[in-house]
Amino acid sequence: MEKKIITISREFGSGGRTIGRMVAEMLGVPFYDKELVDQIALESGFAPKFVEENGEHAPGASRLAYAFSSQGVPGIMNGLSTADFLWNIQCSVILQLADKGPCVIVGRNADYILKDRPDVLNAFIHANMDYRADRIIRLYGESEKSPEARLNEKDKRRRINYQHYTGQTWGLADNYDICLNSSTIGLENCAKIIVALAKG
Amino acid sequence: MEKKIITISREFGSGGRTIGRMVAEMLGVPFYDKELVDQIALESGFAPKFVEENGEHAPGASRLAYAFSSQGVPGIMNGLSTADFLWNIQCSVILQLADKGPCVIVGRNADYILKDRPDVLNAFIHANMDYRADRIIRLYGESEKSPEARLNEKDKRRRINYQHYTGQTWGLADNYDICLNSSTIGLENCAKIIVALAKG
Repeated sequence: MEKKIITISREFGSGGRTIGRMVAEMLGVPFYDKELVDQIALESGFAPKFVEENGEHAPGASRLAYAFSSQGVPGIMNGLSTADFLWNIQCSVILQLADKGPCVIVGRNADYILKDRPDVLNAFIHANMDYRADRIIRLYGESEKSPEARLNEKDKRRRINYQHYTGQTWGLADNYDICLNSSTIGLENCAKIIVALAKG
Repeated sequence: MEKKIITISREFGSGGRTIGRMVAEMLGVPFYDKELVDQIALESGFAPKFVEENGEHAPGASRLAYAFSSQGVPGIMNGLSTADFLWNIQCSVILQLADKGPCVIVGRNADYILKDRPDVLNAFIHANMDYRADRIIRLYGESEKSPEARLNEKDKRRRINYQHYTGQTWGLADNYDICLNSSTIGLENCAKIIVALAKG
């Protein structure tokens, strides 16, 4: 069966986003990453940067933000924490985008949100630590923390967020149709394999 | 880089062994599954059936066997439990087979045992529960236990064994180059993808 919606989950620094863009270009379908953030921002009233920083992160990380930001959008959060409020809008936006037609969606637990659709192919991209460390320095520059610490922190937040909202373990092969190690397989090869699978 | 050794780890009933055989045939290289058991049996002095039942199972499951079987091979186990004794021989046999040349090895934590070789491609095959349940009934027949209980029991024993001897979490995408859901991708497609990757 042809898979119309491709979700790409990924470890930070693995190149999953780049692979997603390649897949979308090869298939000639829309690529939702930044666009998803903008849409969630529009529907939630939060700034895109805030959505980007909190949308895939540990629910606990937003507790403090809740105290402040809920005052910025009074009345519409119905007593939900910022994280839960964002999660609800994220689900709604992703379900709507999938209904619009074939596309590639990066991150934001889209694999779980779309689990009831039979036309979805779920991919997970991961990579060896040294490859990812090297990659984030090249892409995002150095910082005070070691690249390993930055990777572990980001992975941890994504893991906790995924566990909290899906009840599943992040990075377990069982959650996906295909998992690929981009550091041993190569970004372009990963994209080609996913495209071939999507075409059925 | 061309990958000469393919290891296939798999959930029980996922068709991983069948995929491994297909890959070996497509590449024209030896396929080690039953052969591995026979070799370990030969080197350990245990019966092949005993090796098959204990080689991938929880270390605890062999504690009782230890009390009896160590009397069958006196002096050579050096105070190791049966499970640890089998593990040592298993490591040695798998390292020797990999040295002999290109091959496909199914199960027995070969991914971990061969982790220091750069020419190894590690694949993990999993499948949805209903697919696996249906498959084990067709292949192995009905039993007193439900197919789900049989699958959970076997998976649990493999998981504990893997965790015990490798320190890694079984079924985590990070441990492998590629993980495939055989129930959504199909056995033959899985084999073709692995062959294409092995050829580099």
